Amino acid sequence: MRAIVLPRFGGPELFEVQDVPPPTPGPGQVLIRIIASGTNPVDAKLRQDGSWAGLKPPVVLGYDASGVIEQVGPGVTDFKPGDEVFYTPEIHQNPLGTYAELNTVSASIVAKKPPSLSHEEAAAVPLAAGTAWDAIVRRLQLRVGETVLIHGGAGGVGSFAVQIAKAVGARVLATSGPDNLETLRKLGADVVINYRSEDAAQVALRETGGQGVDAVFDTAGKNVIPSLPATRAFGRIATILGFNGDVSAFYPRNLTLHGVFLVRERRRLEELTALIERKQVRPLVERVLPLEKLAEAHRQLDSGHGRGKVVLTVGRP
Amino acid sequence: MRAIVLPRFGGPELFEVQDVPPPTPGPGQVLIRIIASGTNPVDAKLRQDGSWAGLKPPVVLGYDASGVIEQVGPGVTDFKPGDEVFYTPEIHQNPLGTYAELNTVSASIVAKKPPSLSHEEAAAVPLAAGTAWDAIVRRLQLRVGETVLIHGGAGGVGSFAVQIAKAVGARVLATSGPDNLETLRKLGADVVINYRSEDAAQVALRETGGQGVDAVFDTAGKNVIPSLPATRAFGRIATILGFNGDVSAFYPRNLTLHGVFLVRERRRLEELTALIERKQVRPLVERVLPLEKLAEAHRQLDSGHGRGKVVLTVGRP
Repeated sequence: MRAIVLPRFGGPELFEVQDVPPPTPGPGQVLIRIIASGTNPVDAKLRQDGSWAGLKPPVVLGYDASGVIEQVGPGVTDFKPGDEVFYTPEIHQNPLGTYAELNTVSASIVAKKPPSLSHEEAAAVPLAAGTAWDAIVRRLQLRVGETVLIHGGAGGVGSFAVQIAKAVGARVLATSGPDNLETLRKLGADVVINYRSEDAAQVALRETGGQGVDAVFDTAGKNVIPSLPATRAFGRIATILGFNGDVSAFYPRNLTLHGVFLVRERRRLEELTALIERKQVRPLVERVLPLEKLAEAHRQLDSGHGRGKVVLTVGRP
Repeated sequence: MRAIVLPRFGGPELFEVQDVPPPTPGPGQVLIRIIASGTNPVDAKLRQDGSWAGLKPPVVLGYDASGVIEQVGPGVTDFKPGDEVFYTPEIHQNPLGTYAELNTVSASIVAKKPPSLSHEEAAAVPLAAGTAWDAIVRRLQLRVGETVLIHGGAGGVGSFAVQIAKAVGARVLATSGPDNLETLRKLGADVVINYRSEDAAQVALRETGGQGVDAVFDTAGKNVIPSLPATRAFGRIATILGFNGDVSAFYPRNLTLHGVFLVRERRRLEELTALIERKQVRPLVERVLPLEKLAEAHRQLDSGHGRGKVVLTVGRP
């Protein structure tokens, strides 16, 4: 099968189109013919050096896909060949990602593709929207009527977080650079904040009469500590990145900090599908490129300035 | 009335016995004749410099008391003179604490004294046990069958935390210096850890088959970051102090950090009374001193090595 191989860790120019042996599904696994593969910031991090995740080059990266079941492994009863599905495979020590024509994955983390989405749209969903759901619903437990501040609201995870927070019934304050403020408005943000020219914490305090927001979600990094004074007593802050510094301000006001890292499960994808089919959530696809242009997609990931997602077309439905 | 006044911020030698005008209860307040006053580490911090809490010397410190209702203010119907009560007054901008013969306080944060406790024992409860309850029950939501690691298990807050965690039905790993290991055992700790000679995180991993504990409570400070690798995925960590450093290890395993600071409410005291009367929780009183020996109590607070609490006798029942 055709795959994009990374022969060693480094820059986007290293990617090579290669013909590699197709995988075969083991017990509990399905073999998927990939139609579209998503890209995520973690791909660029792994390309640079994926040893922290147990990866050893040569590897095929890619952790989001939409496609068609080609074959089911022993014991798999909930799918049949021809089913259209989407999923995000595990990263750790997985040498074959979704930048390839075929991929095997545990059936337990695969779900039927949302019918109203194209494969390109569906491939933009699992990792980013799953992470946004885990942060907003599972960990922050955001409730109707609450106010949330989302840092990086136009990015891959952030654009889903804004929509999921609106679906919850919350009031959404979201930040982006000046180019993406209109995107934030279209996603449904109630208050848009240009982080280049405004202090998000000050806006959050002003918008809540000095009380602070109920919850904060940092998808961009380095916003946890600056957000502490803008969060109400017993407020919650979630981040998908680590942070470093003086956290002393969090205990006198009974704040809670959640570190969020997606747990793959079919149920999460089905929960997202329900929102997608009700038109409450829509993936924000910025560009669609053929698989061969992967290096170009990675250059955009490296820039750190995305508006939604870059998706790769791999095959035909 | 007789009170111990701190004329300016500084050392324990500054305390002076003075005769000061007695307070009168405003609407919703009660006037309490104090029989015993507790001492807490925060008292020493405020004595050194209480400007962060809005205190301006001269002040009377002290934030735990047990005593008798002397008079009720306008609108108070749930207490009458002669009722035996215990409570922890608010700190911020409160110039009159419990190192005095009389004190006024909002009736809403006062509760009937646990019948089975002396006033000296009851005065050791509200702030420390309330904080331990908030951490273990409200924030960590520790459940039966879970394992918790409590740093500083023989201290004021820690000794209550060990007992409350046992009452919850959890397995308790607790740390102390070598002098207090026997105290930890008597409080009910299942595994005692000498923090001078053992690495608490390694013991926690060993005791949980490498999985990590479900929850951690740091009552001593500087144990949050070292505890991250000893906490299971989706585990929870609570602290009553700030911390500073690299928190990157908390997000790949979906950890949650809770900053805990007691919220005064009568209900909390009633919940504790239920545990006390069922003999599930008992205050650990190390020393009882007359109010005049306050400087000696503060020298012990300054040393940072307490076994439970030092309580001051103020009046007679």
